[in-house]
Parts: sequence; structure tokens; C-alpha cells
Amino acid sequence: MPEYKAPIRDMKFVMQELLNCDRHYQKLGYEDASLDMVDAIIAEAAKFTEQVVAPINQSGDEQGCTWHDGEVTTPDGFKEAYQQYVEGGWPTLAQNVDFGGQGLPHSLNTAITEFFSCANHSFAMYPGLSHGALATIEAHGSDTHKNIFMPKLVEGSWTGTMCLTEPHCGTDLGMLRTKAEINDDGSYSLTGTKIFISAGEHDLSDNIVHIVIARIPGSPEGSRGISLFIVPKFNVTDAGEVGDRNAVSCGSIEHKMGINANATCVINFDGAKGYLIGEVNRGLNCMFTFMNAARLGVATEGVAAAEASFQGALAYAKDRLQMRSLSGVKNPEGPADAIIVHPDVRRMLLTQKSIAEGGRALIAYLSQLVDVSHAPIGKVDEAEKASAESKLALLTPVAKAFLTELGLECTSHGVQVFGGHGYIKEWGMEQLMRDTKISCLYEGTTGIQALDLLARKILGSKGEILKPFGAEVTAFCVENAGNEAMQEFIQPIMTFGSDWQKMTETLGMKAMQNPDEIGGASVDYLMYSGYLTLAYFWAKMAKVAQEKLAAGGDDSAFYQAKIKTARFYFQRILPRANGHASCVENGCDSMMALDVDDFSF
Amino acid sequence: MPEYKAPIRDMKFVMQELLNCDRHYQKLGYEDASLDMVDAIIAEAAKFTEQVVAPINQSGDEQGCTWHDGEVTTPDGFKEAYQQYVEGGWPTLAQNVDFGGQGLPHSLNTAITEFFSCANHSFAMYPGLSHGALATIEAHGSDTHKNIFMPKLVEGSWTGTMCLTEPHCGTDLGMLRTKAEINDDGSYSLTGTKIFISAGEHDLSDNIVHIVIARIPGSPEGSRGISLFIVPKFNVTDAGEVGDRNAVSCGSIEHKMGINANATCVINFDGAKGYLIGEVNRGLNCMFTFMNAARLGVATEGVAAAEASFQGALAYAKDRLQMRSLSGVKNPEGPADAIIVHPDVRRMLLTQKSIAEGGRALIAYLSQLVDVSHAPIGKVDEAEKASAESKLALLTPVAKAFLTELGLECTSHGVQVFGGHGYIKEWGMEQLMRDTKISCLYEGTTGIQALDLLARKILGSKGEILKPFGAEVTAFCVENAGNEAMQEFIQPIMTFGSDWQKMTETLGMKAMQNPDEIGGASVDYLMYSGYLTLAYFWAKMAKVAQEKLAAGGDDSAFYQAKIKTARFYFQRILPRANGHASCVENGCDSMMALDVDDFSF
Repeated sequence: MPEYKAPIRDMKFVMQELLNCDRHYQKLGYEDASLDMVDAIIAEAAKFTEQVVAPINQSGDEQGCTWHDGEVTTPDGFKEAYQQYVEGGWPTLAQNVDFGGQGLPHSLNTAITEFFSCANHSFAMYPGLSHGALATIEAHGSDTHKNIFMPKLVEGSWTGTMCLTEPHCGTDLGMLRTKAEINDDGSYSLTGTKIFISAGEHDLSDNIVHIVIARIPGSPEGSRGISLFIVPKFNVTDAGEVGDRNAVSCGSIEHKMGINANATCVINFDGAKGYLIGEVNRGLNCMFTFMNAARLGVATEGVAAAEASFQGALAYAKDRLQMRSLSGVKNPEGPADAIIVHPDVRRMLLTQKSIAEGGRALIAYLSQLVDVSHAPIGKVDEAEKASAESKLALLTPVAKAFLTELGLECTSHGVQVFGGHGYIKEWGMEQLMRDTKISCLYEGTTGIQALDLLARKILGSKGEILKPFGAEVTAFCVENAGNEAMQEFIQPIMTFGSDWQKMTETLGMKAMQNPDEIGGASVDYLMYSGYLTLAYFWAKMAKVAQEKLAAGGDDSAFYQAKIKTARFYFQRILPRANGHASCVENGCDSMMALDVDDFSF
Repeated sequence: MPEYKAPIRDMKFVMQELLNCDRHYQKLGYEDASLDMVDAIIAEAAKFTEQVVAPINQSGDEQGCTWHDGEVTTPDGFKEAYQQYVEGGWPTLAQNVDFGGQGLPHSLNTAITEFFSCANHSFAMYPGLSHGALATIEAHGSDTHKNIFMPKLVEGSWTGTMCLTEPHCGTDLGMLRTKAEINDDGSYSLTGTKIFISAGEHDLSDNIVHIVIARIPGSPEGSRGISLFIVPKFNVTDAGEVGDRNAVSCGSIEHKMGINANATCVINFDGAKGYLIGEVNRGLNCMFTFMNAARLGVATEGVAAAEASFQGALAYAKDRLQMRSLSGVKNPEGPADAIIVHPDVRRMLLTQKSIAEGGRALIAYLSQLVDVSHAPIGKVDEAEKASAESKLALLTPVAKAFLTELGLECTSHGVQVFGGHGYIKEWGMEQLMRDTKISCLYEGTTGIQALDLLARKILGSKGEILKPFGAEVTAFCVENAGNEAMQEFIQPIMTFGSDWQKMTETLGMKAMQNPDEIGGASVDYLMYSGYLTLAYFWAKMAKVAQEKLAAGGDDSAFYQAKIKTARFYFQRILPRANGHASCVENGCDSMMALDVDDFSF
């Protein structure tokens, strides 16, 4: 297993040098989030993930979770690591101070989330799901619910889940069958079966708080008849402590391609007591609050996968001696050169590096927008908030789908760099590939993200949603129009950007004639958008690096490497967008022409 | 697990209608390979793989091979299935009649190999490795060796392996350490450790015949000092039967991402008795005979993976109801439409279908070239033979790398079509992805194939190697220049083909200045070549389908689907080559610029 080292230097570059988190936090009133504090938290998170979380990643995969008679046992070391996680106060970091949180910014929490995901995807999902449950209760629960459930969830002694999927419906939640019948005391009895419930049952916490969507009898059909409920595994006493067992049980756990150390559960509700949150029949809208945050969390997993695989592949590529460089012997004393001399090995490593670092910048940027979108008016004005929300809405599906697809590609490169050894479990490279494939599926598949982007967001807003981010990118290009050294980055952004605009307009026209053009173009369109978006962040990073170099200092190798990696991205990754553009251009006719019965003979 | 149905109709289309196997076999003197015989063998192979081989695929993955005290036990059912395989005479199909073979054409065996790989990748590898050992002994062994080893290998009661890799060398075989010391009787004693030996030890056969590369003390350093040996697990008595145990043992088996039912062994040679085949120090050249055949076998695995995943995804896409079509309700009686109505699901299915069918055509074409390359002068003339060998040399690395990379992509689409269910082992879709990743690694990684194509084959021949295949493609375009209905296929081939030529010339020039330009371009160049090559076969298939439709008959839906799939390939797959071309064009500077120490800080 590659030894995990948290990318502290790069995280600081992104947060502090690229995105001025200091100024950002001061403006939003996060007085505790000083640069020193940010540094200290990042350093501690690095230590914890390197020393406690990473070492149980491979063993967790091998051992997996086990189910016995409704109870799930996590792999060796998970319980202890989770305990340390709670004792270290990690769950409380960005939570509301009124419920025991530290009130630090969301974006700071996002930064360390990458470390956790990178060190151990399965482990990171347990607290990850709690955040979703917490955010939902905080946004839509009554004061009573908040007082009962939030302190324990914030503390981490209880964990949460999101129970959406049923055997016959995942994407199409309107088809759900779980029913919620009202009791005399105003609570509800929930009956039904949910599947794919990550962290649905385990031995890490004293209670599990399920956020469940269900239908109240008599509600409208489809997605307009979905309500949202809190259903705890153990009922809660008046004193707020764990009481008797609720009628919620774990029927089984799934055997999966990866994330074996995270329990993916079938959860049965047999008249379980639940509490309505939000308004009746408005459950799906309440879920959207959570879903956007969850999607950014999954996008972070894509970055984490690229980073983890890069670390493993880089160490191996420096160490493994095989063949001589085509341009002359580089290691005359050895029997062969280290494989990092070979251009194709470098192509794979730099693909991983440019996706990990570019993705890290995109995630950090988006997490600052989340800070802004959560900030009270006064700290930010209406226009700033609206702009942040618009950018978030646009870029969340791009980040989720693009970064997870590229994350998967990067883990595949990681296996390739190791050659046959990459296929052997011992090295840990194949686990990364297996683990990260889930990120292309859950919280909405790549296809669903692409429809969200193109149909719901862009065409649904008649392109309005593109404006704030488009204006930001244009302003950057204009600002740097006279900067000779930036032209290798600015010019492609302008060209690809203008093609993006034309592509979008053309698609809008075609979609009016034939709505299937949207679905036919969506994934290629999203990938194009992803390559272009990351190009913008690479250009911004190159700019900062140029300024730092111009200012002098002793970190020039780091900044030089940044500029060189930016160059690689523009020359060897961004051009892929051309292939996607050609596919979009060719429309959907060829994919709709076949009759269902004619796919196979 | 998706139920496997061998694609009989499509295999017949490719072999008979596209490639006129009847005429081909008659010309080469395969009198037994009549159309009726071909049909019968394909039908029997379909039955056997569907009923015997496919049913132990998923259970084989779950159970895996087990190692105990040097002995490997294959999963339940493998021994029985292998026995039936032997009893059915399957190993003998294309083998030399002098040693008990049926003497049928290689290309016929290749066709059914796809069925075996598709039904069960792990199972298919056991006989697959025997073919390699057999081919090597037949080509380079003495008559004595042939008489001792071939009959049992042909029969299948013994199996074979290829022992190349050692812990410190895979690609760079010149570094090998296994030594072979001559004995008084002219045999050799082999000492060393080989790793990644597929089918190196198992319980399916009475003996295992290892083909081993080793160094005779005093031989030149590097790849010029490698000799080739036959080393049986059990020594062979004068009567040609299994005798006492040789000093060959299986030290352990690997725990892998996939192909769990095939034993990947560490094989220790502790002064094991072996027999030199071929000339001293010419072992690597002898291996090349085998390696090209093995690479085509692996390319077939890519096609098989695409086909298997397509079958699973198609069945699910027709069955799973989720959401309504964007262009209006298609299943008004149901709660939702089948997901096959959604354009993006079709994009994934058609990607799988076009790669499986296009790849099948390419493999069938290449396997006919193998027939020609094996044919005696008289049946074919020198020029035909040289042309076939040139095309094979050119297209083998393309088929191996391109079809396995696309095969992997197709299995990933298969998982996506299933959504979250694709990640669950029960459905079998994730196994396909895990199993097929090995095909991008063994018998030379994608990167190695790309170097073989661009450096060794194309630039090494100063482009000569491109001529025979280039002339064939050009002739096809010229032939169809006046065919209006073919222009949607012919025009892109001419455009992409002419760009290919320019790209190759430019690369040749750049490589003279800087050899790293070869490695920097190689994989993108290979992928471009792959997309274009498959376009040619899709155009040829479209042509045949047009002719069949024009001739009338009752199979018009099949031919219409062929043309529509060709159209999809040209509109939605081929354009990806544009992205690769842009990457090639941008050269290798950006990937060579970083110092080794500056990849990470």
C-alpha cells in the first residue's frame, strides 16, 4: 500500500495563495479561522489521516464489514479510529456552535475531507454521511428536532444516514413505496425497505439517525408526494439519551466492487417511529439542500482518488528500474533507468497530478462559494450571494461527474504505472480503482449530473446560470490580455470558451426541435465543460506561480513545477475537449435510430 | 450475473459475409472447414460456453483459487468443465494433425476463443496458455520435444505456461536472473523464481509444461543472452507418460483485482530439469512468435469484455423502469419508461455494441491473416504472405492495446448502465471490469504496445509497414468513391487517414530531433490508429449490409442495425480521435520538463 502523505504544501497554495482564504474568512466573520489556525488544523488533519486513518485502509478492504443477525461489525481498527476521530473533535469542526460545533468555515472542513477520503475512502464515508443528515436537520428540522438530534451528531457519538433509494427506484425517487402513517402523537410510523444505505448500520456510534424519504398515504403520485422524516435506530429519551430500539433493522449488507469497509445496507422499516421534517410533500426539495453538498463531497473523492493513486505511482516510478530512456541512459550505475524517465509514464503521472491539483483548486473554490452562500446578509450582499449560488449550481454537477470520471481514469493510470504489479492487491493500486468507481455512481451517476447540468441548469435557465461564472472567466482573460507569459493559457481558454458558448447555443436550438438532443449531448457536453473549467483554474494557478516567482523567495521549484504542470494540462489534457465537441456536434440521431429490439440478434 | 448468449449471428456475419471465410479456407486448403462445419463448430462452441463455461464464471470469481502447500485448487466446477472441454476435443481444434489435432484453421479457433473469454475470462486462460506453449514448441522444439510434449498438450490432458516475468523484471526481460546450467546429458538445470505465471499450477491437468526463459552462465548481458527451455512439472518417462516430480514448485498465488479463478503463480525452479529449445541466446526471438499470437488472444479478451458487458447492460436497460423519456412517454402503462429510451443509456450501449462488433471484425480479419502467414507457399504466394505479415505486425499492437482499453471502458459503461446496482457483485457487471483490467497489462501494457507500434514497427520500418494496410484501405475508398450511400463512411476515413499520414510523418521528423517525442506521442497515436482502423471495418460492414439489403431477404433488421451502428461509430466514437490528434500535435516537451524531484512537494 502506498504510504499516504497529505499534500499540505499544495493545499496551502490553493487555500491561501490562490484563493486568499485569510481575506475570505475575515470578510465572512470567521475570526477564529486565522492563517495560523488554518495551518494548525491542516497539519493536525494531515497527521491524523496519515497515522490513524490511512493505516487501516488496506486491511479494511481485505476484511470488509460483516453482518450477523442484523448487526454490522466494521473491520479491525475502525471503531478505535472513529473514537479517536470523535475525541479529536473532528466532527465538530464546521458545525454550528449552538449545538457544540466549532463554527469554523465549511471550506476548511472540505480541505481536510480530501485528506480523509484520500487516506481511506470507506472510513471517510461514515462521518461524511453524518454531515448530510446534520445539514438536513439544521436546514429543515424544528427546534425540538435540532435540540434532540444535533448535539450528538455534531459530537459524533451518533452518526447519520440518508435513506433514499429503494430496490425499484434510485434516480426516479417519485416511484418510492415506503409509507409514513401518522400516529396519534403526531409522529409517523414508517414501513418499507431502503437499499444502498451507506453507513446504515455499524458499530462505530451509539445511535444512527436515518433521514428517510417516504410517502404519506393520500399524497400526490410521483415526486410531489414525498415527505422527509427523521427515524433514529434507537428512540431517544426525554433526556436526549439512547432509549429503546426503534423498528429499524439492517436486513443485509451488499457485497461490492470496493469500499468494502463501509457498510452498504438494506434497511427495513417495520412501523418505525419517525418525525416529519420540513413540510408535508416537500421532502424532495428539502433533499436538494443536502444533495448539492453531498455531490461536492463526492467530487472531492475524485480528487482524493487521483491524489492517492498519484502518490503510489510516483513512488513506484522513481523506484522501479526498467528499460533505458529513449533519449539516452539516465542511470548508468544501475541495470536500467527508473521508469519515471519514460515519457509515457510521465504522461500518466502528470495526468494524475494535473487532475489532483486542478481538482483541488476547483473544490476549494466551490467550498468558498458554499461559505458565501451560507453567510448572513451583511457579511455578503445579495448580489454576491446570488452569484455564488449560481456558480455553485452550475459547477457542482461538473465537479461531481468530471472529477470522479477523471479520478477513475487516474486510478487506472496508477495501476498501469505499476504494470502487472498494479493488478495485485498487495500494492493497493487496484483498490483505489475499485473504491473510486462508486463515486461515478452514487449521489447521481455521471449521466444524471450531465442532465442536471445541461437540461435543468443551463437550458432550464436559458443560459442565465452561465453568466456569473462566464463573467469571472472573461474578466480573468481580459485582466491578463497584456501579460505575455500568460498567453499560452489565456488564448486556449478564450478559444475553447467561445466554442463552449456556441455549442451551448446550438444545443439550445436543437433541443427545442428534439429534446433527446439534450440527453444525447449531455455527458460529452459536461466533459467539455469540465476540461475547460479546470483549464481556468490551472491558468489562475499559473498566474499566482508567476507572481510568486517574480517576487522571489525560496520556493521557486514549487512554483516552477506549478507552471510546468499547467502547461502539461493545457497541452495534453485540455485538447481532449476537441473530441467531446465533435461528438456533441454530431447530435443524437445515430443513437436514437435503433429500435429497442434491434440492439442484438 | 447476465446470462451469456454467444453472438452466433454476428460471428457468422463477420466470418462469412464480411470476410468470406469459405473462400479463404478453400484457398488455403482447409477442406474440412466447409461452411457447414464452421456453422456446426460455432453452434457447439456457443452451446458449450453458454451451458458449461459461463455458469461457473461468477462462482469462480467468488471462490477463487486456493493454494495449499504448493498445490492449487481451482474453484468448484472448473475441473469438471475442463474435463468436458478436453473430452469435447476443443483443445485439438486448430492443432497439427500429426500430433492429434484436427488441423482446422487458426481463425476458426479464434472465433470460438471469443466465446470462451466472454463466458469466463479466468477459465479461458487455462487453455489459452497451453496454446502459447504449444505454438512455441511446434515452432522451435526438436522432433523429440514435439513427440514428447505435443500430443498431450494438443489433447489437453497436459497444459502449458509461459514463464517470463521475474520480480525485478517484466518489460525489461534482459534483466532476468533465472539461470540454466547444462547437465552431462545435455539437459539443463534451471534455478530461479518466476512470477505472474498464469495457470502455473492447478488441478485441471496431469502435467504442466512450462516454457521458461533463462540465462546460460557466460551468455551476453541483456536480451541477447536469453535462452528458452521446456521445463515440465513432472518429468516424462520414455513412454511419454508422467514420471517423477521435477524440481518446480508453486510458492504462492497472487491475490488480484480480478481473474480470481485463474491461478497467478510464483513458480520456483530449484535445479529443475529443462530442455533447451531453439538456439542458445536466441530465446527472446523465439518468444516473439508466441507473443504476437498471445497479444491477439488478449485483444480478443477486450472484445469479449465489451460483448459480455453489453449483453448484461442491454438486458437491464430493457427491463429497468426509471424516469420518462425526454421526448414523451414511451411506456404509458408502466410507472416509468425502460431506461433504454434515454439517449445517454443508448450512448453507452451503442459504444459497447460498436466496440464489440467492430472489434470482432478486426480480430476475425487478423486471424485470417494469421492463417495466411501460416500457409505453405503454393497455397499463397510470397507477396500475399509478406503483406499478411506486415498487416499483422502493424495491427497486432493496435488491436491489443486499443481493444483492451476500449473493452475496459465498455465494462465501466456496463456498470454505469446499472447505476448503483452495477457496483454490487451479485449482478456480475463489476466483475467484468475487474477481470478485463488485466488485459491492459499482461502481454505488454498499453504503453508497451504503443511503443511497439510507433517506435519499433512504424518508425523502425521508416513507414514501410504502413503500406500494405494503407493500400487496402485506400483501395476500399477508391472502390466506393462513386457509391453515394457510402460517403458518410468513406469521407471520414479519407480525412482521418490523411491526417494519420501527416501525423506519422511529423512524428518521424520530430523523433529524429528528440527520441522522447516517440514515447510522448505513442499512446495517443495508438488510440488514434485504433479509432481509424475500427472505422475502416465499420465501413466495410456497412457496405456488406447495404449489399445484403439491396439483394433483399428476410434479415433486413439485422443489416439495418449494422448500418445504424456503423453510423453511431462514425458520429460518436471516431471523432474522439480528434482529441488524441491534438495531444500528439502538442508534443512531449510539457511532459519532460519536470525534474524527477519536482513531481511532488
